[in-house]
Amino acid sequence: MGNCLNPPVPAVKFIKIYPKMSNKPVIGLLGGGQLGRMLCEAAGPLGITVAILDEENSPAKQANHNPLHITGSFKDPEKIKQLAAKCDVLTVEIEHVETGILEEIATKGVEVPSPDGNSTVLKKVPVHPSWKTIRLIQDKYQQKEYFAKQGIPVAEQVAIAEGSERLSSLRAVGDKFGYPFMLKGAKGSYDGRGNYKIDGPADLETASKQMGDQPLYAEKWVPFEMELAVMVMRTEDDDGNFKAVHPYPVVETIHEDSICTKVFYPPRKVSDGIKKEAQKIASDVIASLWGRGVFAVEMFLTKDDRILVNEVAPRPHNSGHYTIEAVPQMSQYKAQLYSILDMVPSKGICLRPRVPSAIMLNILGGAKGESHDRFVKLAESSSDEFADIYVHLYGKVSKTSRKIGHITATGFSSVDQLANTVSPLIQCMDEIRLERIGSSESAPKPAVSPPPQTPLVAVTMGSDSDMGVMSAGIKILEEFAVPYVVRITSAHRTPHLMMRFAAEMSASTCKVIIAGAGGAAHLPGMLASETHLPVIGVPVKASQLDGLDSLLSIVQMPRGIPCATMGINNSTNAALEAIRILGVAYPEYSERMKAYQAKMADEVYAKDEKLGEIGWARYLEGMQKK
Amino acid sequence: MGNCLNPPVPAVKFIKIYPKMSNKPVIGLLGGGQLGRMLCEAAGPLGITVAILDEENSPAKQANHNPLHITGSFKDPEKIKQLAAKCDVLTVEIEHVETGILEEIATKGVEVPSPDGNSTVLKKVPVHPSWKTIRLIQDKYQQKEYFAKQGIPVAEQVAIAEGSERLSSLRAVGDKFGYPFMLKGAKGSYDGRGNYKIDGPADLETASKQMGDQPLYAEKWVPFEMELAVMVMRTEDDDGNFKAVHPYPVVETIHEDSICTKVFYPPRKVSDGIKKEAQKIASDVIASLWGRGVFAVEMFLTKDDRILVNEVAPRPHNSGHYTIEAVPQMSQYKAQLYSILDMVPSKGICLRPRVPSAIMLNILGGAKGESHDRFVKLAESSSDEFADIYVHLYGKVSKTSRKIGHITATGFSSVDQLANTVSPLIQCMDEIRLERIGSSESAPKPAVSPPPQTPLVAVTMGSDSDMGVMSAGIKILEEFAVPYVVRITSAHRTPHLMMRFAAEMSASTCKVIIAGAGGAAHLPGMLASETHLPVIGVPVKASQLDGLDSLLSIVQMPRGIPCATMGINNSTNAALEAIRILGVAYPEYSERMKAYQAKMADEVYAKDEKLGEIGWARYLEGMQKK
Repeated sequence: MGNCLNPPVPAVKFIKIYPKMSNKPVIGLLGGGQLGRMLCEAAGPLGITVAILDEENSPAKQANHNPLHITGSFKDPEKIKQLAAKCDVLTVEIEHVETGILEEIATKGVEVPSPDGNSTVLKKVPVHPSWKTIRLIQDKYQQKEYFAKQGIPVAEQVAIAEGSERLSSLRAVGDKFGYPFMLKGAKGSYDGRGNYKIDGPADLETASKQMGDQPLYAEKWVPFEMELAVMVMRTEDDDGNFKAVHPYPVVETIHEDSICTKVFYPPRKVSDGIKKEAQKIASDVIASLWGRGVFAVEMFLTKDDRILVNEVAPRPHNSGHYTIEAVPQMSQYKAQLYSILDMVPSKGICLRPRVPSAIMLNILGGAKGESHDRFVKLAESSSDEFADIYVHLYGKVSKTSRKIGHITATGFSSVDQLANTVSPLIQCMDEIRLERIGSSESAPKPAVSPPPQTPLVAVTMGSDSDMGVMSAGIKILEEFAVPYVVRITSAHRTPHLMMRFAAEMSASTCKVIIAGAGGAAHLPGMLASETHLPVIGVPVKASQLDGLDSLLSIVQMPRGIPCATMGINNSTNAALEAIRILGVAYPEYSERMKAYQAKMADEVYAKDEKLGEIGWARYLEGMQKK
Repeated sequence: MGNCLNPPVPAVKFIKIYPKMSNKPVIGLLGGGQLGRMLCEAAGPLGITVAILDEENSPAKQANHNPLHITGSFKDPEKIKQLAAKCDVLTVEIEHVETGILEEIATKGVEVPSPDGNSTVLKKVPVHPSWKTIRLIQDKYQQKEYFAKQGIPVAEQVAIAEGSERLSSLRAVGDKFGYPFMLKGAKGSYDGRGNYKIDGPADLETASKQMGDQPLYAEKWVPFEMELAVMVMRTEDDDGNFKAVHPYPVVETIHEDSICTKVFYPPRKVSDGIKKEAQKIASDVIASLWGRGVFAVEMFLTKDDRILVNEVAPRPHNSGHYTIEAVPQMSQYKAQLYSILDMVPSKGICLRPRVPSAIMLNILGGAKGESHDRFVKLAESSSDEFADIYVHLYGKVSKTSRKIGHITATGFSSVDQLANTVSPLIQCMDEIRLERIGSSESAPKPAVSPPPQTPLVAVTMGSDSDMGVMSAGIKILEEFAVPYVVRITSAHRTPHLMMRFAAEMSASTCKVIIAGAGGAAHLPGMLASETHLPVIGVPVKASQLDGLDSLLSIVQMPRGIPCATMGINNSTNAALEAIRILGVAYPEYSERMKAYQAKMADEVYAKDEKLGEIGWARYLEGMQKK
């Protein structure tokens, strides 16, 4: 999808008038809050100069000092022009800015001294993302009308009449959509603020009053399963021609009290199909806009598995904070810089996370100025074999519900496992929230209920009569502290259960399946056919043929579908093989295997020594006594 | 090892006189160069205030702005006192500071206004690492004399007499040590500067003149294999009692033109035993010093595998830059903060890298101000499936040989593989060096010669007569783009070669071994006994018993040593099993396996469809024609 409907204003080439340290263009940033601060943290090591327009000592200015900063409000047109005069490109960390002045700067230019110093000339400064995108996004109703026209799925919506007709307009919406429906302010709100849920006709008058004079629209109630978000990087050439969109993976976002508080990567219990669809829709949304940069696309996943776009933020976003540690090679802040300065290499970039899971928890100001301190302290002192915890404070004074920092946890296994690991942090955060909202209840269960320990190995057998043989292997797994699950799934008696089990394990944290079976022993091979995971087969000796029937049934798989076969009844070796395989990914299991092998050797050395000491006859005697 | 010889001066508790944003102690930093800058980059997100004493616009001040900074020289005693008055603890980013004033501040105190504002009181400010450590380290000769007394291995050294006796003293050293030997200035030099190699008696007079009036010492020539370095974190309680040392892994450092230019983690071709010994020696060295912080221990590994301590830096160090990305949960800068502020959790910290390999390359100023630009640009535009590249610029104006930045590459496989991946960067760096040192030669081979592609899978067989069977599996490995190696190692004809092969593969990047054998097929099982890696056995059908002899020889391993056995002659499945196992660690192989399975299914669907179209009789006819 291109930007065919609204041809972009061609951007001028960067004009360099002010001298600077680096050979890279100077970025002018409207707003110096936490998003600007983290942008500066990414810009510093890259040698990119960012000139900030905001108050003295704003969060971004604490982390980036240079002589180009301007003190003042990012809403002040004169200051914006002063900033533009010093910079090669302008960007924003907040969409609530005056787009008229940005349009003027991009299309007409700002006055700068002429090269001879005797007069002034007009310098056009590109604005990224485009002022057109910012203007569209400022009106949430128009934004979604535009997306709907592009064929992007959004919730059904209706503009509410203003003035004396407002109440009748609202009643008409209630008749059309039914109750409940959402009443929203079209402008100036974010993080779900400025929204009103209308439960019935009785709410209409109160809601109308509370929302005040602003333009309103109504949205059909969306019974959603969860909220999703995708960050998308958009690139353009210098002439404003669309180049590409690059989506990050989809995340699950949790909102409490109308504020985003928690982000989970990957989303929990969402199919690969839905994840891909969310990335596709988000890419389409951002391709339909104008300018360079990273954008957040917030979406609802409905209970019937539809995805509806809720809104877009034309900037780095709370839902992308986790990328600082999870996608360190190209965090959303680095992506913003690479996009705006057109630094994306022609062979593309990799936005794949370097960890399997991440959770972001916002640090919000609590009931008292120091309420959040214990949350920060807990995070600072957290260390875990299976997770890393990172604290980000923004240099802001705490106020109730203010975003003053965030914590990111990265995990080496599944997101459920990680949620389990960080549950003390979540519990602490939830307690601070309860204090803040003035509740006297005791803290509820953590929002994320700790799941059972997620397995790395699944052990299954065709019948409980195999349990005696398989238990030796299970004991080995316990000895090596391998998280495992045990199931009975018969290939012949419960073929559907067996197939569902294979699919579940393939999609889980499980890395290896051990399957034992006897006679016409089809279970290991059938599981191998249904999963991409390595399957280890244990031939269990049945009533005939001394187990050779079981062995040949398991080992003689056709070309294409391997099954790693062990000796007859040797579940011990199956478990040891599983541990060797885990060692490929987890060095600690390799270390334990080396120690186990060394111990086995020591035992033989000791026996040999004893044999040398007492001679073979007494040794045999000793053995016979046992 | 404690600090029994020189009991530390008890540190006073933090005294808070100046108000500040965060509830954490304020750190005063002498020096605002790149080490200070990276310290500030770590301090910002943790909400730690760092007050810097250095010139305006020094690298650290660009990345950290607050009202506590002081403009001036970190060697100016008055300015140091001003800084101390504002801070809760002092630290240094360079060891060439006046320790007298630090001792005074730590033991007597600095004048600060009294609580009532009518007079002044003395405030003691802790200095970390201790001024005693800094003082000892400033004299490289005394430093090593001290280490030698602690039982730490150092090169043999002799102090050179001063004044008119210097030349005769030098001649005596030549007689004692033989030639060549190293002549070194005891103070004020670092990065190997101020060193002179004396090749024979003829050099003595010139060397003596060139070294000037400074105190000198001579060091016996150490024919070293490579230079190693270990960063060590040291903790103490508030009373100056030693708590613990925490070593990072050992790295290999490369020096060119007496400047550290490249760092390799892990060191190439160094045994685990040497690595552990280096960590142990480095820990002993740092335990013998005083104060909190991170320290670098630089060492020589001699050609006969001895480790000699060269020198210590009492601060973050060039050899630890790689930890920013490789040990993100606790980089050397974060470790410096955690140590100085006593934030290390009682259950300990994890300093284990989160990637298997990393390479740090310094960006040095070249022949011209912009010489390094192409190196930076190449790094910025590098992206690779098996490596991430990070650029760090320090906000310094380029001067010839000045450290103006560094590049870190992190890899997902071995350090040799990573060196291969980043060889274009190394080539570029070496070219810029040749320009700088004024050479007219064309660029030499990269300092790191690209090794052969390091294997993930090793395929071996007992005899070349097995090659026909094994080749099918090798083709599958090629189809899946798996790096592999193929060897012939007979368990019976070349038992020692077979065992060496197993040991080599265990220590290499290899993750899985596939072994084929026939008859009394001992090779797979014997390899399994000699390695901790998963071994996949392929029974090759020999001249008797239709392969059942081979199968049973491989599959019926004793408990304790598993061998994953495939069907007779089925090397295809062995390769597919190896790829499933690689998928446990490398998701791309899982994806390829899923695609392969989907393709197999599609082929069967297509056949079934064709059968439905043309009927079984014509289908059979078509098959018979093939």
